[in-house]
Amino acid sequence: MIEAAVIGAGRIGRIHAGNVAAQSGIRLKYIADVHEASARELAQIHGAQVADVDGILGDPKVQAVVIASSTDTHAPLIERAARAGKHIFCEKPVDLDLERAHACAAAVARAEVTCMIGFQRRFDPTFAALHARLMAGEIGEPEMLVVTSRDPGAPPVDYLRRSGGIFRDMLIHDFDVCRWILGDEAHSVHATGSCLSDPAIAAAGDIDSTAVTIRTQRGLLCVINTARRAAYGYDQRFEVLGSRGMLQAGNVRPTEVTAFSGQQVATDLPEAFFLERYRAAYAAEIAHFVASLTAGSPVHTTIEDGLKALELADAAARSFATGAPVTLAK
Amino acid sequence: MIEAAVIGAGRIGRIHAGNVAAQSGIRLKYIADVHEASARELAQIHGAQVADVDGILGDPKVQAVVIASSTDTHAPLIERAARAGKHIFCEKPVDLDLERAHACAAAVARAEVTCMIGFQRRFDPTFAALHARLMAGEIGEPEMLVVTSRDPGAPPVDYLRRSGGIFRDMLIHDFDVCRWILGDEAHSVHATGSCLSDPAIAAAGDIDSTAVTIRTQRGLLCVINTARRAAYGYDQRFEVLGSRGMLQAGNVRPTEVTAFSGQQVATDLPEAFFLERYRAAYAAEIAHFVASLTAGSPVHTTIEDGLKALELADAAARSFATGAPVTLAK
Amino acid sequence: MIEAAVIGAGRIGRIHAGNVAAQSGIRLKYIADVHEASARELAQIHGAQVADVDGILGDPKVQAVVIASSTDTHAPLIERAARAGKHIFCEKPVDLDLERAHACAAAVARAEVTCMIGFQRRFDPTFAALHARLMAGEIGEPEMLVVTSRDPGAPPVDYLRRSGGIFRDMLIHDFDVCRWILGDEAHSVHATGSCLSDPAIAAAGDIDSTAVTIRTQRGLLCVINTARRAAYGYDQRFEVLGSRGMLQAGNVRPTEVTAFSGQQVATDLPEAFFLERYRAAYAAEIAHFVASLTAGSPVHTTIEDGLKALELADAAARSFATGAPVTLAK
Amino acid sequence: MIEAAVIGAGRIGRIHAGNVAAQSGIRLKYIADVHEASARELAQIHGAQVADVDGILGDPKVQAVVIASSTDTHAPLIERAARAGKHIFCEKPVDLDLERAHACAAAVARAEVTCMIGFQRRFDPTFAALHARLMAGEIGEPEMLVVTSRDPGAPPVDYLRRSGGIFRDMLIHDFDVCRWILGDEAHSVHATGSCLSDPAIAAAGDIDSTAVTIRTQRGLLCVINTARRAAYGYDQRFEVLGSRGMLQAGNVRPTEVTAFSGQQVATDLPEAFFLERYRAAYAAEIAHFVASLTAGSPVHTTIEDGLKALELADAAARSFATGAPVTLAK
Repeated sequence: MIEAAVIGAGRIGRIHAGNVAAQSGIRLKYIADVHEASARELAQIHGAQVADVDGILGDPKVQAVVIASSTDTHAPLIERAARAGKHIFCEKPVDLDLERAHACAAAVARAEVTCMIGFQRRFDPTFAALHARLMAGEIGEPEMLVVTSRDPGAPPVDYLRRSGGIFRDMLIHDFDVCRWILGDEAHSVHATGSCLSDPAIAAAGDIDSTAVTIRTQRGLLCVINTARRAAYGYDQRFEVLGSRGMLQAGNVRPTEVTAFSGQQVATDLPEAFFLERYRAAYAAEIAHFVASLTAGSPVHTTIEDGLKALELADAAARSFATGAPVTLAK
Repeated sequence: MIEAAVIGAGRIGRIHAGNVAAQSGIRLKYIADVHEASARELAQIHGAQVADVDGILGDPKVQAVVIASSTDTHAPLIERAARAGKHIFCEKPVDLDLERAHACAAAVARAEVTCMIGFQRRFDPTFAALHARLMAGEIGEPEMLVVTSRDPGAPPVDYLRRSGGIFRDMLIHDFDVCRWILGDEAHSVHATGSCLSDPAIAAAGDIDSTAVTIRTQRGLLCVINTARRAAYGYDQRFEVLGSRGMLQAGNVRPTEVTAFSGQQVATDLPEAFFLERYRAAYAAEIAHFVASLTAGSPVHTTIEDGLKALELADAAARSFATGAPVTLAK
Repeated sequence: MIEAAVIGAGRIGRIHAGNVAAQSGIRLKYIADVHEASARELAQIHGAQVADVDGILGDPKVQAVVIASSTDTHAPLIERAARAGKHIFCEKPVDLDLERAHACAAAVARAEVTCMIGFQRRFDPTFAALHARLMAGEIGEPEMLVVTSRDPGAPPVDYLRRSGGIFRDMLIHDFDVCRWILGDEAHSVHATGSCLSDPAIAAAGDIDSTAVTIRTQRGLLCVINTARRAAYGYDQRFEVLGSRGMLQAGNVRPTEVTAFSGQQVATDLPEAFFLERYRAAYAAEIAHFVASLTAGSPVHTTIEDGLKALELADAAARSFATGAPVTLAK
Repeated sequence: MIEAAVIGAGRIGRIHAGNVAAQSGIRLKYIADVHEASARELAQIHGAQVADVDGILGDPKVQAVVIASSTDTHAPLIERAARAGKHIFCEKPVDLDLERAHACAAAVARAEVTCMIGFQRRFDPTFAALHARLMAGEIGEPEMLVVTSRDPGAPPVDYLRRSGGIFRDMLIHDFDVCRWILGDEAHSVHATGSCLSDPAIAAAGDIDSTAVTIRTQRGLLCVINTARRAAYGYDQRFEVLGSRGMLQAGNVRPTEVTAFSGQQVATDLPEAFFLERYRAAYAAEIAHFVASLTAGSPVHTTIEDGLKALELADAAARSFATGAPVTLAK
């Protein structure tokens, strides 16, 4: 039985705490949060204790920490946890600064601990089934990936200001999907974008709509389109063209009701946002983390995956800023 | 906190035990089963105790029992539990014999306890959403209901022999759906059927394919088609034609992957069988049971609903046997 | 080159005239109609001549007549055309009276002419493709057929009064589909129904909603549900359950636009009514008629098919009237 | 009645000849082709005469010519036809050389004749319906367009060598769709691509897979992905994200059969290639051409549209060659 702590009792921390508590093979011992009341409330639900980070890292019984606190705390917490010999599950991104993220990876390597990054999409049942079928050769060699990734609405401008910009905050998931599905590293990245939904986003130095093209080292193509605001909800699809066919991953609907009126035939909107859409994925990634620790086997989404996605985000941001494609170092 | 016991540790008993254990507001205290090893195994998973029925009914702290044992035990257990003043959740059917089922209902009424019958389809997210939209008037007045209800394969012939026949064993759910969706009682029932998949079913005195027509007291129409064997899996659909449109409830798929090959465009088969298809429904019906007990409010699927469905099953069986439609007493 | 005449210049006559004119291997020579102005207008469009029935049947160059006039004229025209040695394409039904229809069949047999009945559904691309795949064994042996057949709205009550009732007027197509798809003759028929949309229909002695069950001689099952009024348009679907799978024939939509709003995901309603839905089928049945005449090969939908469908309609009407199933003579 | 000639009796010429012949308001007088036998065969089908270009342009009764000959003949034929005062319908592209195409446009302007370019996609029922709904404001302001455009297989390498390259030969349609749907001109274009299906294409100096991003003058985004080889057939889709929703234009299937086997639920592949997919569009564009000539109203796809699409193709080719985005002159 692995004893674990969750650091961060916000929206995503509560999800992880629930999944850790429900997962066999792991026990949720501590909850930490800078707002102690939040920590206390979440700890109570799961019969866990409230602790601070020092307390958690100082408890030799704790083998694993789940980092679900704000982005700026990820890097220091990864480094401290690694030094304390704890295995780590950390929400994306490792850090907004690539150098700092590299330092984290080095700390993890030195400590020889597991550090899994929460790219939950790889654990979504639809996405994972597509990936497995692709790996099994169902459509031959992958050639082109088209990713559509749209949020139902933009977060508050305050959040955007601290987010690292749309490429690092939102597309980082899509960059990971690109690497995962095409099984190849980027050779070059071109990004363009606009602010179309709200001038306040532009005022904050960000954009809300992007179109990114990646050409991989083997010449495969990936096009990613994203928007901060899709009036119809959370849109999370991709499709892979292969030499022998195509695999599409579609949205998930709350129900399978179809309504025929005098005007149209209508079905449900997609699941509203990430908490609904990726509910099963969040559970599955924690189960994978626990299974990997238990078996001593590697995790699917390592800190190196986190760095690679961040490199792509940096390249995209640079491409957008300069207007020119960016070639990545091999 | 309601203390509860689950009687029966087979396939469906395990589902209910899991849902009781996971549900807040209720505590799973006891598991009983004629095979003590099964009871022990299930009790261990949920930190419950093993007990026999006497022990359960004799514990004044136990307020509710979930009856998930074999069909022939339902009636005696309902009566004993009612006499002991316990609230009851019982799997369908109340009993294969309508008179005996009436006696159970009388016992429940005398004891003034809640007795909910496990018509889980009413709690399926898709079916429940359709019902709510119908009730809200989205398609005007309901006029016709078409129910398709097919199993992936027939159960063992041994099971069939004790099942009460296809109308009581399999269509009882569809009869409940008919009453629930059309909001009207049957006036007459016509049933026909055949044994098409396996002569052993005919040898056991049963059929595997049915077509049943119900005309309600207000003249609404319901057609139900069922088969014990659908090669493509568990098929659970219905559609309601209303004066202003139609609502369809479709099957649920494990994933939203679509595969384009040189031959066809293919999606997943429906969820394999009832444990998968109605996973959410089983959880929701227990949640409703607990919420009703807690609030002191009536449950949605009462023992009277169980009797009404059984009356329809009896009428259908008689219609099939005689070849003539059967008119129900008002 | 076959010379042909179209008798009847109404809605369906215009369709047939257009298809005859566009079809190679046949020449539209004459149009006849009791309203000469209609005949003249249609003749002009296609460069044909106006004639009366005597003129058409008296012209030895005319080899084929297409009968698209009112139902009460079908039988006398079939008999006269057969006596004149003309090949016949006649709209359904042969006649509303089964005996009279038999007399027509006898006349056709005596004259040794071809008489094709316009069961256009067999020529619909979707229905025909399903039939071909079924015949090829794709889903094994057929076991159960579910037919949904709904009009967008009831015809005028005046029409209904002369229509022979819903079973002879509307379901006759569905009875033909049943025989065609299951490849077996009916053993017994049960029909029920209601008048739900408009009391004027009941006042005219008819109903608007039916549920019909057919059990075939081999024990296969067919359930047909029909309604005169579907608020969402013309609904023409069926599905066949076979021993190894299922084939569904769905509705056809005018366009493949899908609209995502803040409320729902919406697609087009089905094609509005039979002229749109069966446009390709009407062309294909005329092409088949011409090809059969040219090759001297039998047509797919003979006058015997017309009689068989009428027998089923009669049986259904009797079942509805008496409330009891009707067994058909072998 | 407009008298017309079709120049070119190949695959697309036969389509246009058939549509001209079937269209009321226009009469197909002449067919011309460098292979006289092809011209003769096609002329015979439609009761037209064979002529050479001089004969056609010299006949004062001829008001309109349809140019469906090889690409290198388009420009000289447009210029000659314009000088002769004939209205022109010309297949895309105007010419592979932009300057030459400009000269054609000037000739058309001087002659004050109509010159419609065959961008048939604008006349596809699905695409046209989407455009109409977009114009009606159904999803607010358009923000992003995603175009998927894939052929079932690459044409012969010989064809590719003379084609002007994938951007001018294949994407020219997509560039027109971009301008039509977004209602805005390109500000900048970025194109990348690869040769993934057949090294012979690379050897011929071309590619088979492209990813193109266009940013318009108002900052709207368009991403186009194309492939010469989709194993599942002809894939022609696009979707527009707007401020209040999304509209998708999907593929069209030959039939609406759905097959459920033990493995999957399968529907038809999309229509096989452009002749099938755009059959209705080819008829509608000729109908529009004739209606515009008859009414003296402007056509929807002018020679200026042809030039604008060609400018985008040139820009994309330049971007692909240099690796840098290309900014278009205003």
